[in-house]
Amino acid sequence: MKSHLPHVVILGGGFGGTRAARGLRTAPVRVTVIDRTNHHVFQPLLYQVATAGLAGSDIASPIRWMLRRQRNATVLMAEVRAVDPKRRVVQLDNGEEIVYDYLVAATGARHSYFGHGEWEAHAPGLKSLDDALEIRRRFLVAFESAEKIEDAEERKALLTFVLVGGGPTGVELAGVMQEIARAMRGDFRRIDTRATRVILLEGGPRVLPSFPPSLSARAHQDLIDLGVEVRTGALVTRVEPGVVWVGDERIAARTVFWAAGNEASRVGQSLGSRHDRAGRVEVEPDLSVPGNPEIFVIGDLAIVHKDGKQVPAVAPAAMQMGSLAARNIRRDLRGEPRVSFRYRNKGDLATIGRHKAIADFGRFHVTGRLAWWFWLFVHIMYLVGFRNRLSVLLQWAYAYFTYQRGVRLITPESRLC
Amino acid sequence: MKSHLPHVVILGGGFGGTRAARGLRTAPVRVTVIDRTNHHVFQPLLYQVATAGLAGSDIASPIRWMLRRQRNATVLMAEVRAVDPKRRVVQLDNGEEIVYDYLVAATGARHSYFGHGEWEAHAPGLKSLDDALEIRRRFLVAFESAEKIEDAEERKALLTFVLVGGGPTGVELAGVMQEIARAMRGDFRRIDTRATRVILLEGGPRVLPSFPPSLSARAHQDLIDLGVEVRTGALVTRVEPGVVWVGDERIAARTVFWAAGNEASRVGQSLGSRHDRAGRVEVEPDLSVPGNPEIFVIGDLAIVHKDGKQVPAVAPAAMQMGSLAARNIRRDLRGEPRVSFRYRNKGDLATIGRHKAIADFGRFHVTGRLAWWFWLFVHIMYLVGFRNRLSVLLQWAYAYFTYQRGVRLITPESRLC
Repeated sequence: MKSHLPHVVILGGGFGGTRAARGLRTAPVRVTVIDRTNHHVFQPLLYQVATAGLAGSDIASPIRWMLRRQRNATVLMAEVRAVDPKRRVVQLDNGEEIVYDYLVAATGARHSYFGHGEWEAHAPGLKSLDDALEIRRRFLVAFESAEKIEDAEERKALLTFVLVGGGPTGVELAGVMQEIARAMRGDFRRIDTRATRVILLEGGPRVLPSFPPSLSARAHQDLIDLGVEVRTGALVTRVEPGVVWVGDERIAARTVFWAAGNEASRVGQSLGSRHDRAGRVEVEPDLSVPGNPEIFVIGDLAIVHKDGKQVPAVAPAAMQMGSLAARNIRRDLRGEPRVSFRYRNKGDLATIGRHKAIADFGRFHVTGRLAWWFWLFVHIMYLVGFRNRLSVLLQWAYAYFTYQRGVRLITPESRLC
Repeated sequence: MKSHLPHVVILGGGFGGTRAARGLRTAPVRVTVIDRTNHHVFQPLLYQVATAGLAGSDIASPIRWMLRRQRNATVLMAEVRAVDPKRRVVQLDNGEEIVYDYLVAATGARHSYFGHGEWEAHAPGLKSLDDALEIRRRFLVAFESAEKIEDAEERKALLTFVLVGGGPTGVELAGVMQEIARAMRGDFRRIDTRATRVILLEGGPRVLPSFPPSLSARAHQDLIDLGVEVRTGALVTRVEPGVVWVGDERIAARTVFWAAGNEASRVGQSLGSRHDRAGRVEVEPDLSVPGNPEIFVIGDLAIVHKDGKQVPAVAPAAMQMGSLAARNIRRDLRGEPRVSFRYRNKGDLATIGRHKAIADFGRFHVTGRLAWWFWLFVHIMYLVGFRNRLSVLLQWAYAYFTYQRGVRLITPESRLC
């Protein structure tokens, strides 16, 4: 009986995908969520895992567990090779094919190296829990190596960290890395961790370009106050082991992280529809793919416009799109016409460091201590539904009062916890 | 000035090594602690990390952070290649040599495959945080794979878990794995996790052989009550991918874990002193190596006898030895004669599952619910000093009341958190 219900396959268990699944909770459909990992990640706090402020489990939750009470939903941990829109099947990398009646593509984006994929090994980015743990490992190992080494030049390069890209991720990482370096000074005997250099390179004219110029300027000043070297108009031309080139200038840095540019998941390209240079898929107002009304594309994988501006690649937008895709599927099944997506912007937030943040609510701006407490409040509230909220609260309270970070573990073979 | 002080090099930041370092806090020496990882692990709770009950960071702490206030102590994250007792140097794997006046070898043990090192890939053991995360990954991935597969035989093999070795680690893992399988039943749609088989294979006549026979019998019955298949006198003769052989009997199991036998760290063999088949070093009553009074061997790496019986390889014994080695170094420096090691056994504990544990206090035994609550109390008290105690308490309280485990994350490339 159950198998005669329409089958909705959702690719990706991020903010968009899980919201779409939940939106179909009471609908007469079978739902299958496919993700390459077994967990949903609260991406806005990934930088905290990358900098050892939180454990991975504080900001991630098994997708299977999130949907355990939704009896019409099945979760599969699998890698998607491609979608065949003509035959309406999803091909998994083990060769299995899954037939769908509706498809919701929510596989998000990876960082883009602008055609220089070979830089990734020297400058990893931050999109998954795995990325966060690799960044944490490199960051902590640099100090361990500096403590062991005699050569002064090499020690200096080990204590120099370059962040490429002045968007929210680059700014958050830069601020917190400088703060941690300072907080760790008592732990080392041979090096002075206060000599750590954190360099933020932004190719454009200002950091946080998605914010109004006045807020960018404030964030820029906040970073400088923290001791971060901020350089705008600094286009990275080459990344080699231990060296970053900005034009002719050579920066000796053992540790480089990438926070510049996004490239949509390649699943989007197999949908047969138009996409932009970043691989994002152009969608109709109802979020479906032109010519394939049974396929919805949501979240960072989709290009959606509002008032002539692109809807930003942020969690609230992905969640709103997930809800709308589910709603349009339900409307289809009831024979009602589909509705169009309308992005409701509730404000943009970015944090730079302790008591330093900026908030853009359109009509008014907030900065400094008030914005920071607001940022903290919003993120703890968003973590509701995650069982780890209380644990996060405790760890943050601990870090706030002691200036220490608790999760500073390096495990062999690049694994961390 | 500082460099004229005697240099004490401690190999290993486990229970013995960290205790030895702390014992030299006020002594007129320089202390260097060398460990291949950057963290100390609370080993008795490793099985909880392996079964997703706790995050790695709940039971581990950076060694550097533990010793941050001990100004005479330096911590190096490095791999030790060998010790040259004649020249009194420790050779690191980067070629560096560290000269010591005193050496405290506390590098512990790994699991032993009795000459079949090739089995390790198919049946990993549990000694480090890394091991725990690998076991967790394999355990969770088995259920994910079973949910995807159509073949009934293969699905059965995926839901069969074999634990080799009926010591505390094997018993604890078996009990908790059976419990988790039951608790996860609501999360899957295609498989019934209650059909999971957990098989515990013990080569000897009874489980937990270090405990009195009556307590072994109770633990055996507790395991059966939980649904574990316990087989004593079952010697494993071969391990292949997906198959364990016990003599002529073939057990089809995709996931096998090893909890049988210990082999001392190979650092012990470079000390030039006598060692037993397991590689453990014979020491004098003052814990020094015969003929090399400046070298102490402690913890699982040492063979120490009390009343004709070997002191067990447990955390309290390692801590007592670490304290004594530090004390004897301090006595040397004051020109006082060394004292002999005397093991104070405070009782042995093992837990089997919820409300199931055994405790041996020599003159009296405790079992069941009371022993379990006692086990819980002791382990939370031991975690004092770790900042994570409160977090662990919360997670256990959560697990106790909900029967759920929170840290069920699988990350790509075998990494977990």
